[in-house]
Amino acid sequence: MLKKSITELEKLAEDIREQILETVSKNGGHLSSTLGATELILGMHTVFDSLKDPFIFDVSHQSYAHKLVTDRLEEFHTLRQYGGISGYTKPSESPHDYYVSGHSSTSISLAVGAAKAIRIRGEEGDRVPIAFIGDGSMSAGMVYEALNELGDRKYPIVILLNDNEMSIAKPIGAISRMLSQAMAGRFYQKLKSGTEEVLKHLPDSATYLAKKFEESFRLITPGVMFEEMGIEYIGPIDGHNLESIIETLELAKSMKKPVIVHAQTLKGKGYEYSEGYLEHWHGVSPFDLETGKSLKKSSKKSATQIFSEEMLRIAEEDSKVVGITAAMPSGTGLSSLLEKFPNRFWDVAIAEQHAVTSSGPLAKEGFKPFVAIYSTFLQRGYDQVIHDICLANLPVKFAIDRAGIVGEDGETHQGVFDLSYLRPIPNMTLFAPRDEVSFRSGIEFAKDFPTPISFRYPRGSFLDDGEFPETPWKLGKAQILKEGNEKMLFVGYGNGVGRAIQTSKLLKRDIAILDLRFLKPLDIELLKELSEKYTKWYIFSDSAKAGGVGSAIQELGLGIEVTSFEYGDKFITHGKTKDVEESLELLPEQLAKKIDF
Amino acid sequence: MLKKSITELEKLAEDIREQILETVSKNGGHLSSTLGATELILGMHTVFDSLKDPFIFDVSHQSYAHKLVTDRLEEFHTLRQYGGISGYTKPSESPHDYYVSGHSSTSISLAVGAAKAIRIRGEEGDRVPIAFIGDGSMSAGMVYEALNELGDRKYPIVILLNDNEMSIAKPIGAISRMLSQAMAGRFYQKLKSGTEEVLKHLPDSATYLAKKFEESFRLITPGVMFEEMGIEYIGPIDGHNLESIIETLELAKSMKKPVIVHAQTLKGKGYEYSEGYLEHWHGVSPFDLETGKSLKKSSKKSATQIFSEEMLRIAEEDSKVVGITAAMPSGTGLSSLLEKFPNRFWDVAIAEQHAVTSSGPLAKEGFKPFVAIYSTFLQRGYDQVIHDICLANLPVKFAIDRAGIVGEDGETHQGVFDLSYLRPIPNMTLFAPRDEVSFRSGIEFAKDFPTPISFRYPRGSFLDDGEFPETPWKLGKAQILKEGNEKMLFVGYGNGVGRAIQTSKLLKRDIAILDLRFLKPLDIELLKELSEKYTKWYIFSDSAKAGGVGSAIQELGLGIEVTSFEYGDKFITHGKTKDVEESLELLPEQLAKKIDF
Repeated sequence: MLKKSITELEKLAEDIREQILETVSKNGGHLSSTLGATELILGMHTVFDSLKDPFIFDVSHQSYAHKLVTDRLEEFHTLRQYGGISGYTKPSESPHDYYVSGHSSTSISLAVGAAKAIRIRGEEGDRVPIAFIGDGSMSAGMVYEALNELGDRKYPIVILLNDNEMSIAKPIGAISRMLSQAMAGRFYQKLKSGTEEVLKHLPDSATYLAKKFEESFRLITPGVMFEEMGIEYIGPIDGHNLESIIETLELAKSMKKPVIVHAQTLKGKGYEYSEGYLEHWHGVSPFDLETGKSLKKSSKKSATQIFSEEMLRIAEEDSKVVGITAAMPSGTGLSSLLEKFPNRFWDVAIAEQHAVTSSGPLAKEGFKPFVAIYSTFLQRGYDQVIHDICLANLPVKFAIDRAGIVGEDGETHQGVFDLSYLRPIPNMTLFAPRDEVSFRSGIEFAKDFPTPISFRYPRGSFLDDGEFPETPWKLGKAQILKEGNEKMLFVGYGNGVGRAIQTSKLLKRDIAILDLRFLKPLDIELLKELSEKYTKWYIFSDSAKAGGVGSAIQELGLGIEVTSFEYGDKFITHGKTKDVEESLELLPEQLAKKIDF
Repeated sequence: MLKKSITELEKLAEDIREQILETVSKNGGHLSSTLGATELILGMHTVFDSLKDPFIFDVSHQSYAHKLVTDRLEEFHTLRQYGGISGYTKPSESPHDYYVSGHSSTSISLAVGAAKAIRIRGEEGDRVPIAFIGDGSMSAGMVYEALNELGDRKYPIVILLNDNEMSIAKPIGAISRMLSQAMAGRFYQKLKSGTEEVLKHLPDSATYLAKKFEESFRLITPGVMFEEMGIEYIGPIDGHNLESIIETLELAKSMKKPVIVHAQTLKGKGYEYSEGYLEHWHGVSPFDLETGKSLKKSSKKSATQIFSEEMLRIAEEDSKVVGITAAMPSGTGLSSLLEKFPNRFWDVAIAEQHAVTSSGPLAKEGFKPFVAIYSTFLQRGYDQVIHDICLANLPVKFAIDRAGIVGEDGETHQGVFDLSYLRPIPNMTLFAPRDEVSFRSGIEFAKDFPTPISFRYPRGSFLDDGEFPETPWKLGKAQILKEGNEKMLFVGYGNGVGRAIQTSKLLKRDIAILDLRFLKPLDIELLKELSEKYTKWYIFSDSAKAGGVGSAIQELGLGIEVTSFEYGDKFITHGKTKDVEESLELLPEQLAKKIDF
């Protein structure tokens, strides 16, 4: 726990911001949410004990200040580097981190679970879980599932709602609008004290009315919805005023009930370039502290950029094209489409379940919906892909970004499982482009495809520069890029094709290379043919081995020897993609040594 | 559309109830929700046109009356039978069924999707989506994800909330309590008209106060939460009064905004045994109409019963054992535990995401949480299994009921995918019992297992009667039940072991049988050994072929020939399990013919 005066804490907040700016400007990372949360986190550490009270950070990319005040000051410069400290809370890193967190909106469920344990263990009164959650995380359904139980069972939990009126993108939805009524709420609270004066002069019979009247004012603050759910509400308070934060958290902690403390903060506070509403500063790559300019060399076009450009092109051409993002307009490249076609492209907030399901009727009504979601976040809409899209057999197109290793965000964000979890779903078609040209034509192919279809592509750019000419996309057809005179065949899928090409070049042998193109349906005819010529197959794909590309091929029982260079059965850590791949022995120079002639 | 007088509609409601009772008493089915919904559905068909306005039934097991008034009267007697009409809405069955639905809480997302399409097509005013949703479905997060977007974008949608104060089990959670304030709301509305009289006599300066005052009454009805989210609220109305239903739906339809119509109904209405709060009558097997008694022969103990008994035993012995169900206390067999250990077993309502995530901290705090969820519903908590349990590597035990074909509920409910979607998750252990004895000892094994673990078991009873003696559970160890003198090996997993045994008996040859026991980790050593002796392996498991048991074995590259009798790449229809299995050629007598000597 911090035991410091307000002045000392204010100084500490300044130091923390400096430290964060210095490190993030070098390493990249989540900037504006963490800058805005500094005082709130210092307040938490003043009132609660992170070795005793479960400190639960939602998404936890805003927890840098927490890391700095809990035994990680020395290592903080290693933030998000391979082998360094994580950009998220991580119990294996420190006993002050109660839980691992990288996906949003889990904190209230975790706090409820902790509170149940505390109650059974008879530690109520001694330990109080505190969940720190941003307003952007409030749109996801699991928050309401947790509040629904919490409001009924009344576990003592403090929920610190960090309201910066912005998640990653612009605030979307009714909840966000409701929170922004906060100022109105304040106005009415002032008004209320005035009207109470008036009521005093009414006849006695009006006492009941007066009580009701008071309620009416309470109810028009943003707290009404939470209070209706059985959760006490305090706020809004100024989330940069340490005195008010500490006082309120102390009150909330003492209430022995579920309480939401609604704090208003300025995202990016303390760094002139990042203050306010700029989506750019949510997650940043290294930048120049003086100018705020990115230091990243503009390299090859990223897959996301290609997607964005191509979507713009087809949306202009075909008025049936519509699209959905779940709070990731710029991350998925759809932001320009949201601007240009506000009636055909929607940001539905952090709400992957709803994003998927609501696309079904659009397809049924004759539109061509593209649902752009990262591989790791589509896990949130898994049942919906099965039950609401594939069972209905409707032509929704899933654009799966961030497939494979995503780099510094690490284990919570790696795009590892999508092939394994999507392949068993009937009616689903799966393909993957290998380079810019095949990606552009692949998007066009998906657009007019009559049933559910998914395509995956990497964070950053494709490994393959378009070395081999492309053949048109045809359902279930693979493409032999190169025949060989060895017994081995390199089978690549998506970005794995580039890896296969690079590996083969290092070997200086004449090795056959296949671009599988479709994982489902497989090009069984061609694969059979190839199995007669080539008997040792090596699989290159950025996906889990279990149930992945190699597995799908082995299910065919072709009698060949298969070695898969997909990911093994371990969560994959954070760091630069190249460093992480090296640790997994997936760099072409490492793979080349594993080919058995 | 129905064009009938109130009296005619009332008579029709009576006929429909009779028809439903007659059919469900013979075929089994969902009874009480559908009986309670009859007038509401007739009201919908009077005010809306199901060939034009998207009719979206949430879960849709309450839609029998809709089926009866839309071209399925003749076939209604085939309800839920193999080849007959489905117990859920199904567009392939009738153009009056807008969407397929069997999992709960999807209806508002679907309505939002439909409304977007209607807006783009310029059909607003002409077509209005109507979502019919029960109060039980309101606990799932995806409802809020949809309301959050809807309240912001204001699509004209009518949400008909069928409030029978009961989903499948007792109502859980804050939302349900809030809805039950309805009666209080009525009281206040009455009071309000009285107080307005009083206010008339106040001085003019009090006009503003009066307005606020009126708001205070509006706000304490259950509608406040919806109104805060930007959705208009009308209600509560009597859901059995056709006149009031029709009048209200007409009003709602004309409002050109999102509106919730809150109707109160009596679950099971019209059949003396089923009226009211009896969970028993939610989904029933065939019963005697006169006495209400079940006609089902009490056969072998079901897997769920074994689970229930064993959980009771271990919960008594070990105070660390805790458990969670998501609105399926009796379906999962946990109801007796909820009663006996109300502080250690929780029904968290339809909220699979929260059920999974909240179990994590319980495990972290030293408890042994069993999360009992059907295979098909665990799809809703997939990301949470990965991100909140396996990544944290905490000892949560997933008890996966209804694995394999579930019979009459059909394609939305089959337990097909769990092995494929769970196997790629690092830190997860997967096993399956084959019979009663191994199930009981397996639960004990899971209880003390130090990391995440899942076990699956069928609806109904195990095929295997315990023919072979059991060996103790040991991580990653399979059990050879029988060596053979043929080149083939039958590999069974879970209930597949019984199927393998039955098939081998029909063949009258000396075939080796392996109970795999662990799908993850596999008993690689033993499998290698067996691959030297037996070269043709047949896989028996009630799971998807893609990424399933056969696939896992093939990934080992043992050089054997593998034939998998797992499910192919098609959604599996409804009907008696035996009929469905026959259609898939999975009965032992059918499988026996496929063994290639």
